[in-house]
Formats: sequence, structure tokens, C-alpha cells
Amino acid sequence: MGVIKLKNRVGVSAVAAVCGKKEHDGPFGCGLDEFCGDDTFGQKTFEAAEAEMTRRCFCHAMRKGGFSEADIGAIFAGDLMNQCTASSYGLLPFDIPYFGLFGACSTMAEAVMLAALTVDGGYFKRAAAIACSHNATAERQFRAPVEYGGQRTPTAQWTVTGSGCAIVDGGESPMYIREVMPGVSVDYGVKDAANMGAAMAPAAAETLLRYFGETGYSPSSFDLILTGDLGEEGSSLTAELTRRRGLDLGCGYNDFGVMIYRKDQDVHSGGSGCGCSAAGLAAYLYDEFAKKHVKNALFIGTGALMSPMALAQGQSIPGIAHLLRFSAGL
Amino acid sequence: MGVIKLKNRVGVSAVAAVCGKKEHDGPFGCGLDEFCGDDTFGQKTFEAAEAEMTRRCFCHAMRKGGFSEADIGAIFAGDLMNQCTASSYGLLPFDIPYFGLFGACSTMAEAVMLAALTVDGGYFKRAAAIACSHNATAERQFRAPVEYGGQRTPTAQWTVTGSGCAIVDGGESPMYIREVMPGVSVDYGVKDAANMGAAMAPAAAETLLRYFGETGYSPSSFDLILTGDLGEEGSSLTAELTRRRGLDLGCGYNDFGVMIYRKDQDVHSGGSGCGCSAAGLAAYLYDEFAKKHVKNALFIGTGALMSPMALAQGQSIPGIAHLLRFSAGL
Repeated sequence: MGVIKLKNRVGVSAVAAVCGKKEHDGPFGCGLDEFCGDDTFGQKTFEAAEAEMTRRCFCHAMRKGGFSEADIGAIFAGDLMNQCTASSYGLLPFDIPYFGLFGACSTMAEAVMLAALTVDGGYFKRAAAIACSHNATAERQFRAPVEYGGQRTPTAQWTVTGSGCAIVDGGESPMYIREVMPGVSVDYGVKDAANMGAAMAPAAAETLLRYFGETGYSPSSFDLILTGDLGEEGSSLTAELTRRRGLDLGCGYNDFGVMIYRKDQDVHSGGSGCGCSAAGLAAYLYDEFAKKHVKNALFIGTGALMSPMALAQGQSIPGIAHLLRFSAGL
Repeated sequence: MGVIKLKNRVGVSAVAAVCGKKEHDGPFGCGLDEFCGDDTFGQKTFEAAEAEMTRRCFCHAMRKGGFSEADIGAIFAGDLMNQCTASSYGLLPFDIPYFGLFGACSTMAEAVMLAALTVDGGYFKRAAAIACSHNATAERQFRAPVEYGGQRTPTAQWTVTGSGCAIVDGGESPMYIREVMPGVSVDYGVKDAANMGAAMAPAAAETLLRYFGETGYSPSSFDLILTGDLGEEGSSLTAELTRRRGLDLGCGYNDFGVMIYRKDQDVHSGGSGCGCSAAGLAAYLYDEFAKKHVKNALFIGTGALMSPMALAQGQSIPGIAHLLRFSAGL
């Protein structure tokens, strides 16, 4: 149930983020390694575009870290597409052991966590964590094709077109992984696929309450506490749910879904999707550590473990939240 | 790339398998903990039935091992349904950290591997690996609803209605996990969703060739070499592909997809699905170790990482194969 402390020096040694146009126009734009003006990445379908985006993202991370395929012991990757094909097809060209994950939008946190544990345990010298999402593939699959032009509700979030990669190893790093806490699924009965933030907020609150309860830290111990993609609605709910149980997250609390777009970009409640926190981690958080603006941070990847089929059959949306603690030193 | 040797005593301490009627009527029938005569497990939809089957399977494994929720540090689980909802919903009742995986039909091998690595590394005292599939949910999603009554081709496999669970810890066990080798995705250009065995065979051959090449073992070192769900077609191809490259798998080679149904059960090329090797591992292989019929075995979980959408868009089917070496002693 608990918090797992890493035994050895394990850090993020290289990152990369590749996104679409809207994300490039947003606050993380200057942290991206590449963006595509029409979100197609030169492919004929958006599904192939998502795969190509994740392939390029991994290539950028390898190049920036000075690594070749032979230097990477394993890839932990996943996405939102049925059968996680963006990751499977995008990362197929690489001759590297592959672990497919499904953590919905919490996938980046799950991937970094498993990369960190397997590197810390000495099973891989170096492992890559990658996650991606694409607005057009996610809208078609989970709601309606974008061409349909459906009206979006105020609580709806905008699925990020983006991919983020973090390469984890035992070398020097601006951002070490000190503790991890895998999440437990929780379900508060939310059934609205246009309000994923509310579905995931209880999981985020649960993980945060468990973490602070177990470690004795207080939110003021951290420069930043960042949830993955709760958006305006979900992050307010998370702050409210923790406050009711005696935990004030304070002014260091923010959410990648809130941060990834400017207020005037008309995304309603904010960004979402596996790519939201993956790109945020790579294009913003790593940079903040590298520039020494941040010394201690918590990242809580949040995911909604539902499918359109499950919702059509009357099920509600379970949420999950995996926590990682990063620090500048050891 | 390589083979990972576990450092500590890590074994499978309890298993469970829950299946449908057809699997109960097959050779593994007497090894099941429960089966359902109409494959519904008392639920209104087959999707809910699959989730319920996996919930029951996990309960049986905990009961047989004498464990409560608090004894299980993590669950590694996945299935074939879009967004892996059988696992997410089925395992939602348990207050246990949850890692969702997507390895298609290789999920059980991936789950046991990650459970073994994280237990061996000391991150969890005990972890559960679970995978499931359901014939009716898989046929509807990947091919056509069963009510459609489509003609099946000779190379088609029958998706197993089944769930298997293995609980992994450092205690005494009839079946220790000694080495693991995660697979690399390979794609030989097969595009026929009614011939998944052929799509996965190159991955199985690749993993086996790498394993024997690296360790210097020969197939005769093992009582059994079991692939996950290649069926008649895929397992013959695997034997052929390895033979052409100088590796004769010998008479200890078999495939859970070939073994799980009797020849007269009219399943054409054999069984498939995450539940095939998961149930086979729990209902057959563990038993063979417990009865001391088998001392050394390799299990190679095989998966086809495609989606119906990817096939409709003209992509071929990538395969992956994760290997585990089990032994009776240390």
C-alpha cells in the first residue's frame, strides 16, 4: 500500500516532448523538441500520426541523452488508443525489450515508476518511460469524431496531442526519483465522460492523503505538487477533497491539465490525456529542475480506467493516481 | 536485451484459474477452481462477466494462499478489452496498488515478470499477476459478435473464456521464477486477424533464439517449453522458424493454445487470448510442478499488439513474446 523509497541513485537523465500545434501555442511550447502544425506528423491517419509522434519523441530523448538503442534496457509505454497501438506501432522500430502499460492518463507516472523500480533493482541499466495521446484519435474513440463538431460542456477537457519521454538511469541528473507510491483504484460513481476530472479527483486525493499520512511530510515541504490532468474542475475538487480531510495542498499545488494551455485557448476545463502529464513532465518539470527553480516536487499521474463500452453499459468511471517524488539532490 | 537472473528466492506461492464451459470441458478442466456453464458469471453483459470472472479468480488465489488484501503489495493485470476494463472493473473492489498492463495475449507473462522483478527487488513482499479474456467480448471487439455466426477459417483460434492468477512472493514454492527475458516487438507483415498464431510466431522464435543463444542452454535442459497461445498454426511455425536457424525445440515443446482444448472441441487452430496462458499456467503448469512431474520449464507468453482500427488502416500485426524460466528447486 505504501510508499516505496528507492535504494540507489536513480534519476531522469534525458527527456523529450513532441506535441501538436495547440500545445506548441501554450505555455509549454518553448520546452518542446518538435511540434507539428497540422497534428498529422506527415501520416495519412491520426492514429498513425500518434504513433509517429511517439517514435520521434523517443528518438529525441535518445539523441539528447547521447544514447543508442543498445543503451536502453527496456521501454515502458502506453497510450489511450484501443490496444495501445500508438505505442506498439510507434516503438516497433526499436530493438528494445518492450513493456506495454495501460494506466489511461496515469500511464506516464506508471511508466516512470516501473522504469525507476527496475533500474533501482539493477535489472536494467537504463529504461525509458513514454506516453502519448492525440486529440483526434481520443475524441473519435471516446466521444465523437472531431468533424462532428459536437458542443463541449464546461467540464470537458481537451485531449492533448503530445508525447513525452523520460529516460531513467543511475547517472547524474537534475531530477532524482526518491520515492514512488502506486495508486489504488477508486470509484465515486461519476458516469460523465465529459467530466473526467471529477472521476479522477477522488483517486488523486486518496493517493495524496495516503502519501502525506504515511511520510509525515506536509505540502509545504514541496515546491510543486502536480497532478496529471485533472483540469480546472478536477484539481479544485482534489484540493477540496483533501481539505475536508485536513490536508491543505497549499499554493504549490497545480495540475498539468490546467497549465498546458493558456486560458484564452478555449479548452474549457483544461488538458487531459496520457500526453498531458508526459509532455508536462518533459517540457516543463524537468526544465524547472534543470534551471534549479525547483528542488522538491511531487507528481501524481491520474487516470480514468473506463471505456466507452463500459459507460454505455451503465458503469461508472474508476480513477487511479500514481505518485512520484522528485528531488534535485540526494 | 538480455536474460535477467533473479537474485533472491522468488516463486509462485498460489494460483487460481476460473474459466467458461468450453475450457472446463477441455484438458485443463479438472485444474480449474470454478467454471460457469453459460459463461455469464451471473452478469447481464459479457463484459461484466469477464470482470466478475477475474474478480473471482483473484479471490480464489488469495483464499488458496491464505492471503488477505493487506498481504498483497501490488496487482499487475491486464486483458484484451478496449482500455483493459475487465481488469480495471474486476479488480476495483480490492484496496491494493494496481498496475494496468497491455501486452495483448502476452499479458500473463508480462505480469508475472513484473511481479517477480518487483518482489525480487524488495519493493513488494508479495504481488499478484492476473490476466483474462472472454470469447464473447473478444469476438465482438476484434472480429464479429458471436451471434453473427461468421464462418471461421482453419487458422482461426478460439479466444479462451478464462482468467488465471499467480501470486508471487519469497516463500517456499513448487515453482520458482529463476530468469526472465522481456520480449522485443517484431512484425513480419501478417495482416490476417484470423491467423494470429502466424503473427506471433516470429516473436516467439526471436525470444527463444535470443534466450538459448545467450544462456547456452539447450531445449533438452527443459521438461517443458510452453508458448502462450500460438495454436497449431503458430506453434508449428515457431518450431519451423527456430529449426531454420539451428534450434530444434524438441519434443518438450508445446503451446497452451494447443493444449487447452481437445481436438474434438472444434476450435480449429486452438485457443488464444490472455486467459489462455493465464489459465494454463495456473490450472496446468503449476500443478505439474506441484506433483513433481516437471522440474524445469520455460513459459513464453505471446501477444499480438494490434487493434481492429490498425488493421482497417492497413497496418500489419506486431508480435511480442516474454520468457520466464521456472524451476522446482533453487
